[in-house]
Amino acid sequence: MMLSSLDGHPSYSDPPLVWPIPKHLFWDSDVAKWIEGACYFLKQQSNSEVEAAVKELVEMIRSAQQPDGYLNIHFTVVEPTKRFTNLRDFHELYNAGHLIEAALAHRDLYNNDRLLETLLKYVDLLCATFGQGVNQLPGYPGHPEIELALLRLYDHTKDRKHLELATFFLTERGNPNGWYHQAQAPITEQQTIEGYAVRATYLLTAASDLVRVNPQAVDQKFEVAIYRLSDNMVQRKMYVTGGIGAMKRWEGFGLEYFLPQGTDEGGCYAETCAGIGVMMFAERLLQANASVQIKLDGRFADVMELCLYNAVLTSMSHDGKRFTYSNQLASSDEELSQREEWFTCACCPPNVSRILGQIGGYVWSHHDKPDESSSEITVHLYVPSTLNFQVGSDTVELIQESEWPWGNGDIKFTLKTALLKVALKLRIPGWANSYKLSAECSTASTKNGYLDIPPNWLSQNSTFTLSKPLEPRLIAPHPFTNQTTLSLARGPIVYCVEDADNPWVSDHFKAVQLDPRCKIEERSIDDDASGDSFVGLTVSDGASAIDLQKLQASPAVDAQASQHATPIKELQFVPYYFRANRGGKGQMRVGLRRAAPSAGKGMH
Amino acid sequence: MMLSSLDGHPSYSDPPLVWPIPKHLFWDSDVAKWIEGACYFLKQQSNSEVEAAVKELVEMIRSAQQPDGYLNIHFTVVEPTKRFTNLRDFHELYNAGHLIEAALAHRDLYNNDRLLETLLKYVDLLCATFGQGVNQLPGYPGHPEIELALLRLYDHTKDRKHLELATFFLTERGNPNGWYHQAQAPITEQQTIEGYAVRATYLLTAASDLVRVNPQAVDQKFEVAIYRLSDNMVQRKMYVTGGIGAMKRWEGFGLEYFLPQGTDEGGCYAETCAGIGVMMFAERLLQANASVQIKLDGRFADVMELCLYNAVLTSMSHDGKRFTYSNQLASSDEELSQREEWFTCACCPPNVSRILGQIGGYVWSHHDKPDESSSEITVHLYVPSTLNFQVGSDTVELIQESEWPWGNGDIKFTLKTALLKVALKLRIPGWANSYKLSAECSTASTKNGYLDIPPNWLSQNSTFTLSKPLEPRLIAPHPFTNQTTLSLARGPIVYCVEDADNPWVSDHFKAVQLDPRCKIEERSIDDDASGDSFVGLTVSDGASAIDLQKLQASPAVDAQASQHATPIKELQFVPYYFRANRGGKGQMRVGLRRAAPSAGKGMH
Repeated sequence: MMLSSLDGHPSYSDPPLVWPIPKHLFWDSDVAKWIEGACYFLKQQSNSEVEAAVKELVEMIRSAQQPDGYLNIHFTVVEPTKRFTNLRDFHELYNAGHLIEAALAHRDLYNNDRLLETLLKYVDLLCATFGQGVNQLPGYPGHPEIELALLRLYDHTKDRKHLELATFFLTERGNPNGWYHQAQAPITEQQTIEGYAVRATYLLTAASDLVRVNPQAVDQKFEVAIYRLSDNMVQRKMYVTGGIGAMKRWEGFGLEYFLPQGTDEGGCYAETCAGIGVMMFAERLLQANASVQIKLDGRFADVMELCLYNAVLTSMSHDGKRFTYSNQLASSDEELSQREEWFTCACCPPNVSRILGQIGGYVWSHHDKPDESSSEITVHLYVPSTLNFQVGSDTVELIQESEWPWGNGDIKFTLKTALLKVALKLRIPGWANSYKLSAECSTASTKNGYLDIPPNWLSQNSTFTLSKPLEPRLIAPHPFTNQTTLSLARGPIVYCVEDADNPWVSDHFKAVQLDPRCKIEERSIDDDASGDSFVGLTVSDGASAIDLQKLQASPAVDAQASQHATPIKELQFVPYYFRANRGGKGQMRVGLRRAAPSAGKGMH
Repeated sequence: MMLSSLDGHPSYSDPPLVWPIPKHLFWDSDVAKWIEGACYFLKQQSNSEVEAAVKELVEMIRSAQQPDGYLNIHFTVVEPTKRFTNLRDFHELYNAGHLIEAALAHRDLYNNDRLLETLLKYVDLLCATFGQGVNQLPGYPGHPEIELALLRLYDHTKDRKHLELATFFLTERGNPNGWYHQAQAPITEQQTIEGYAVRATYLLTAASDLVRVNPQAVDQKFEVAIYRLSDNMVQRKMYVTGGIGAMKRWEGFGLEYFLPQGTDEGGCYAETCAGIGVMMFAERLLQANASVQIKLDGRFADVMELCLYNAVLTSMSHDGKRFTYSNQLASSDEELSQREEWFTCACCPPNVSRILGQIGGYVWSHHDKPDESSSEITVHLYVPSTLNFQVGSDTVELIQESEWPWGNGDIKFTLKTALLKVALKLRIPGWANSYKLSAECSTASTKNGYLDIPPNWLSQNSTFTLSKPLEPRLIAPHPFTNQTTLSLARGPIVYCVEDADNPWVSDHFKAVQLDPRCKIEERSIDDDASGDSFVGLTVSDGASAIDLQKLQASPAVDAQASQHATPIKELQFVPYYFRANRGGKGQMRVGLRRAAPSAGKGMH
């Protein structure tokens, strides 16, 4: 670990990873993310080895702090004269942000300030350094993170200078050449989401926090911009898996509707951390309650759920030992569907650890009504779990039980309380065609994707079932993407085809096409090798492979000629998250060509 | 004109157009191309003003030659010490090539060596300078042109050193970083066509010449490579208009099958000069006769014809006063469908002038059989025209009359000769579903797209008609392009839709879709403003516009839901070459989305 000593280290002399960024420049953040993730898991289950490591790291961080509060390895050991000289490229404030988040997780676990104290001292230095004052620097970081960390810190400290520094960083940006860093204009003026995808989502996460925490700090245009950029991202720059960032070259957003599935089609990056960023952003927008400006809207939960089960979960192997950075929707000879044990730039694995460690926070949110007359639980995700919370001095327990995302889609809720003060909001996913409560509730109403269940009904029905049939369905990207493809989905799960199940494939399923009238059947899979169980899907009667020998473009093909295609008897689909767990050739595809019926002459 | 004086000129101090290339570095070639084109037109029709200009320029060029034969304005006037120091970027040999071609055209027109003499002296210097000898430079030019010019010169001089220098330039290449200049490997090893599109076609034109002129100079792998690269270009990197080069950034080829129609889809350059380069390349491959290695194949004529009527002709306005450099298949807000009066880098307009001036050479080729027993005329293009040639001491005349590319597709041939020695090969276009001769010819056979008509039948039928019905048809790019589009074509003409005819459009026809079962009707258009007459096409019953309000991706759309589209009563199509002649908003599209029938629930 880099923090083991403040002496020099041979790796400090390695050539830059990406000019001008030294290889180890974001290692501070990787360690911080590991601590943060570890604290979340330790809260659920103790582990002496992990606890010892956390302790050792915390002490190292404490000892690395400089007398004035400064805390960064590179600019203490390697280039001490270059502190705060390149906020755009050097990840100095990004590292600080992750250390703050680690300190808050550590505080929450141990109920002591052993790490937080150190970070508060560093934040004092940052607050003194940055701002519009005479002796202050007017800069803001090139990679957002400290903004959301400061707002999280403010939630804990209620120290206004933490809020003010976050507000300063968020509102200072605006430089015509800054598109890569989402700084091409002030947030309020940004019309489309651009640049590096992770940075964009971290920035919007913090911006949403600011609107929620301190609506007075920003005008209405700020909130409008957040929704505008979110819509732009989801409707025009997001893959059907929830992945974002078509452009590998700048790890970010490309043209609107430019969403090639893989390298051989000209793109697809869909970085794991960007998927996590989308979840963070959505989660912030779902922390709506009567006292804040933002309004609860199920479409953000739809995107959060989509990312979790697909864009994010696909990044980790079933045994938790291998990861991906980029999550393409189709493999190619240049880029196979596979995972790696580690990366030189290791941002993604500890980020997966953080998000899985705090997944409970994504499942539901809990707000007391301003007058404390009642408490409201909003259920965003359907995951077997138990929520305990206080209403005044009373402890309430809410349990959800289901086989989700498998099974038939029934979720059984049990509310344990003697109070009549608890209301529920249950998310009805955008993909659900119907839903049903086990007992009729005439006063329940659905608004923006959430079913409102009032306290009086709950007091009569402390145990009830919400049913949302889980059935396979066909989805497609927007036609402007020029991806005339069909994908299979079932509930929140998006599927793919792999050579492990379809060993005859040798072209990464490029020539495979699907008739939208195809027959789709479910099958229960218990995969022996991985130990995973899930619902697989089989397409029969409707899949075929274009006969490319008979289809030579010169450069055009006759659009009215019969299409030559060879029927595929059975095409097996597995969840996209499950890809690359069973060896094979690394051939995979999510979107299959939509078979175009020929012009009247019938399919061959 | 830059050649008016060898004194300095203020523009010589202008900053580089593209680093490190001074703005005026290829002006020598522009002047040469203008002279060459002018000579072709003067051969058909005299014009004293043009003749005077040619004469003045020729004298200037003569006077600009240095004592050792060197001839280049920039490296004589501006940077005399940098002769032959950067063959890759500085267009020095490219300029020389165009001057050679101009000299040959001038020689052919005036039957004197006033310009050719100068160029022969320069070529002597080049032959002495380049090669594998001890005091020679081993370089080759970054922009091919001199290779084909030297081979053309060799056809005239039969001087083997001209052939040898061309052979040297063609076989010397091979540098892993040279993809932009088609130098990533020797031609024989190149697997796919890459880099700057104009350079690639000029190189392959010369390579084809070399195989034809001196098959002994190169091995069989050279010819195989030419066909491989041609197939790669036509089948995987060419637009349905014959345009090549999807990537604006390097004005060249992108990934296989990456053929977006316009800037908002991520590409489409289709430079005019590249279309001309394809025609040159195809024309060389069609100069097949019994004595050369290459075999006559109509697919090259198909591509040549496609480029002529579409990718090339679309570059010039009907009045001949405005040009395009890039010829996209769809406009966008960023790049409207329009033409300009001139360009700083003016390669395209004089290239159009050259090709139109020598179009006769593209219409047919003429070869005597090796034993001089007979003469063979191969007709590649159907253009009303007359060919006069000699068989021994006899003059033969072949006339073709038609309304091509309009009318019903009948071509009337008249052969005027007393000899029984003339054979004909008539191209049957790849797009033609059928053909018919006005009199039965039992001995005629079709091979590789050409109908062989023997001398004995011709002596009985000196006047006959070949009929190839011209009817509208639907064409499409290869499905791997991810362009699920339909375009209209009729004979060699590809059509487009424009806002001039469809003024309701405001989205560049992005949302317009076509049912492949649509009804297509012809209409005779006499456009008053331009004076052009052509066959327009009208689609009724099958065109519609997707209702985008009802189709929001979040990020996926339900592929089984009904599609909402508003029928378009009549959609008017005009030839793609005719675009942007009538004002309007500059909205245009060639490929319209292919309407996808919904999955069983019926179209709305």
